[in-house]
Amino acid sequence: MGSSELLEKLHAIDRESRYLERSAAVLRWDQETYLPEKGVEERSEQLALLEGIAHQKLTSPDTGRLLSELGSTPENPRGDEKLPELERDFLKVLRRNYDRAVKLPGEFVSDVARAEGLSQAAWVSAKRDNNFSAFLPHLVKMIDFSRQRAFYWGYKDNPYDGLLDIYESGMGAEAISEVFTPLGKRLKDLLKKISSRPQPDNSFLDEDYDIENQACFSRDLLKRLGFDTSRGRVDISAHPFTTTLGSDDIRITTRYLKRQVQSGIFSTIHEAGHAFYEMGFPEEIRPSSLADGASMGIHESQSRLWENVIGRSRAFWEAMYPALRSYFPGALSRYTAEDFYRAINLVEPSLIRIEADEVTYSLHIIVRFELERELIQGSLDPAKLPGFWREKMKELLGVQPETDAEGVLQDVHWSMGSFGYFPSYALGNLYGLQFWEKLVSEVPDVEQQIAQSNFAPIRDWLKETIYVWGRRKEPSDLLKIVTGKNLSAEPFLGYVESKYSGIYGF
Amino acid sequence: MGSSELLEKLHAIDRESRYLERSAAVLRWDQETYLPEKGVEERSEQLALLEGIAHQKLTSPDTGRLLSELGSTPENPRGDEKLPELERDFLKVLRRNYDRAVKLPGEFVSDVARAEGLSQAAWVSAKRDNNFSAFLPHLVKMIDFSRQRAFYWGYKDNPYDGLLDIYESGMGAEAISEVFTPLGKRLKDLLKKISSRPQPDNSFLDEDYDIENQACFSRDLLKRLGFDTSRGRVDISAHPFTTTLGSDDIRITTRYLKRQVQSGIFSTIHEAGHAFYEMGFPEEIRPSSLADGASMGIHESQSRLWENVIGRSRAFWEAMYPALRSYFPGALSRYTAEDFYRAINLVEPSLIRIEADEVTYSLHIIVRFELERELIQGSLDPAKLPGFWREKMKELLGVQPETDAEGVLQDVHWSMGSFGYFPSYALGNLYGLQFWEKLVSEVPDVEQQIAQSNFAPIRDWLKETIYVWGRRKEPSDLLKIVTGKNLSAEPFLGYVESKYSGIYGF
Repeated sequence: MGSSELLEKLHAIDRESRYLERSAAVLRWDQETYLPEKGVEERSEQLALLEGIAHQKLTSPDTGRLLSELGSTPENPRGDEKLPELERDFLKVLRRNYDRAVKLPGEFVSDVARAEGLSQAAWVSAKRDNNFSAFLPHLVKMIDFSRQRAFYWGYKDNPYDGLLDIYESGMGAEAISEVFTPLGKRLKDLLKKISSRPQPDNSFLDEDYDIENQACFSRDLLKRLGFDTSRGRVDISAHPFTTTLGSDDIRITTRYLKRQVQSGIFSTIHEAGHAFYEMGFPEEIRPSSLADGASMGIHESQSRLWENVIGRSRAFWEAMYPALRSYFPGALSRYTAEDFYRAINLVEPSLIRIEADEVTYSLHIIVRFELERELIQGSLDPAKLPGFWREKMKELLGVQPETDAEGVLQDVHWSMGSFGYFPSYALGNLYGLQFWEKLVSEVPDVEQQIAQSNFAPIRDWLKETIYVWGRRKEPSDLLKIVTGKNLSAEPFLGYVESKYSGIYGF
Repeated sequence: MGSSELLEKLHAIDRESRYLERSAAVLRWDQETYLPEKGVEERSEQLALLEGIAHQKLTSPDTGRLLSELGSTPENPRGDEKLPELERDFLKVLRRNYDRAVKLPGEFVSDVARAEGLSQAAWVSAKRDNNFSAFLPHLVKMIDFSRQRAFYWGYKDNPYDGLLDIYESGMGAEAISEVFTPLGKRLKDLLKKISSRPQPDNSFLDEDYDIENQACFSRDLLKRLGFDTSRGRVDISAHPFTTTLGSDDIRITTRYLKRQVQSGIFSTIHEAGHAFYEMGFPEEIRPSSLADGASMGIHESQSRLWENVIGRSRAFWEAMYPALRSYFPGALSRYTAEDFYRAINLVEPSLIRIEADEVTYSLHIIVRFELERELIQGSLDPAKLPGFWREKMKELLGVQPETDAEGVLQDVHWSMGSFGYFPSYALGNLYGLQFWEKLVSEVPDVEQQIAQSNFAPIRDWLKETIYVWGRRKEPSDLLKIVTGKNLSAEPFLGYVESKYSGIYGF
């Protein structure tokens, strides 16, 4: 068989396993948005079955044989040097997926999928009822499954490294610590300076904002940002997320709070940033596993870039504030765009990660990073987690939750067994500002464009520079290709220090 | 292996193939309700793959071997006489599913699923744009696939019999003709009498009725009827339908018209009737393929019973009208429950089946029955269908559509390749009144119960008498068990003749 025939067969396997994964994604999306309460149990069974079949498809002996025949091995994943670069990148990604998948027994994958469904449902109730102990057995199971997973895959220093590698290929706990420790220090210093200054008035955000009007404004916003509703949609869920159900079916969810109008706005922009990445892969890679983010951190760089660097900028609200005020004349008539800009950028240590400001956000991540590392290493008893959570919060942010619902139960991630995911958020902040620095050098009038509500230059630049690569490059290589530099916290720190010294006047 | 072990294995196969079918049902439900426009193409691929895998699972050599080992053959489908009755019924149903499935090649099943997805999408656009010729190539393909399917399965007299047998086991085109021809004649006679009398005023139904208020009223209605939203939901789609995504996840869709407030109400009640059946199977059969309707006609008997015999009765609107009027005080304040009852029961030949009254409804079915029989027999050129449609409408109802959108393109069924389905609707009317006659004899105060908005006695009776059997019995046997009688149009004709002579005064 010639190599083009072998490749065609491998692409067919890849396509089918993606169709199955995306079918499962439809079921999962439905579970978070519209599934009737009592349907959750059977849905877990359905998901377990689909995940199991997708796993079988990917790990069939055919896949291994085809990869080998094309010269792809664990040591030389990109295969035969004579193949086109695009196909070599495809082989690399498929080899990685295959190696990861064959190491997990089929039964284990089904068990995990089933348990995850139940665990997430239990988390929803536990958070609602502020009942950590109802969630604890599920958490223990999720930790145990994650450790087993790391064990099956193998790891360098400790099982947590094995999990980090899924989300941020090549990045271990030690390397992350080396960036996070000084990052945490500089952010605490900045926070201290800010705390000594008077706060802007943000009391008007805490009025009644009609939910239906919030939803209308968010739809307007998405339209102006360039979100294509013929290829995507927006729905409501307890925890906002983005999911790809097909190359032309990328969905985000958001949620609106009756008070705190900014919450729904920034959830929406955040998820739109993820969706733009997923919608922006070039035609040539769309049908294959190359149509994916380079890593979770790179994915988060996109969402946080749109949410913060663009969405919380002065220029952005120059453009958008008149529309927002027209939806809420009662609450906003006495406030200007500048008032709103200052209000949404108020910096204050708080309890909830997804509502944290840009300065304290990474501190929330460091709390989670340090706790989950210990949970996976086995040096922290999950039953004692609520206490340790409060202690870490005190140490890094100087505040402590009164209930677990606004403490350790606030995030969905651990209920899904996604240990090792959190660091991506803070890495996303760092990558994002490195990208932005480059963008500004190439699109020098970007601020005026934003102020005129013209986002096409940003979308185009991101598409041509980052999205175009899909998952072809490792995150560190992509960073180098785009910016010419290695990972650095400096652009991020420079950005927050300059922005907030402006707002707080020091 | 003992028979209980063999049965357990067979149940496991059945369960997995049902999980896969229900996963496909989630994808199909999503396609009709929320799928972004451009997502339809890949969705068809995903569905084709899932259908293919479900088919593979059901037709695996294991299934055939297990059936044989349990004594089930095409001639003796219920297997070993020593097995419990419930298991023997299970074997019968699985044997039937298996025999049907093995006769269809896997590739054919995938091709059909893929083509159906595209065909349905094409139908939606064609109906919207009133463009029959854009739909024609899909229709031709659907006819061709249906003929092939009948051919694979085998049939008695002609391929159309083979298709009818899917929906109404044991019922051929000749047998249906024998009931439909005199039914059509008596209904035309009744229509003639009605036409000679003055019409009730129904002009007030054709006012502006706020859609959001209609949706609220429908939700109230469902609650009063006893629809359990912890096990189901209601959404909007172009063509209302009911679908089972899990034993505890049964969903209906409806649609509301700004004018013609009754349209959304009766669509909702109709689908609720289907949903009650699906929700009401007893625990002991729920996990297996016995948890299904006895036939499409029996299923339709349930929906049409709720929609018409209950939902269009005087007692029902005595109970419900005050709530409806409170939602629409402007349009309804000058009209009584009796006015409303007469308005919604106005009989008039019209173009659209799903909005037809109880007298003309079955005539719409006879039009479709006669046309689809010829399409499948090959004696009618699909390109000429719009002309023949107009002719048949003239002959049976005395009216003709001006556009294909309100003619041959109005129903979704043919776009899904569901030829042979339509007769079930009219059979449902007949079965339904046979059941109702029995119910009234056992619950003599049913009318007072309805007038007091108490539907529990009806729900309980249907559950204990009909739902309890699931798919264990053939439709004709079920009819005999419940009513002690064979199929007859008399109860239905007696009901419409008495109801409408009352309303029209003859």
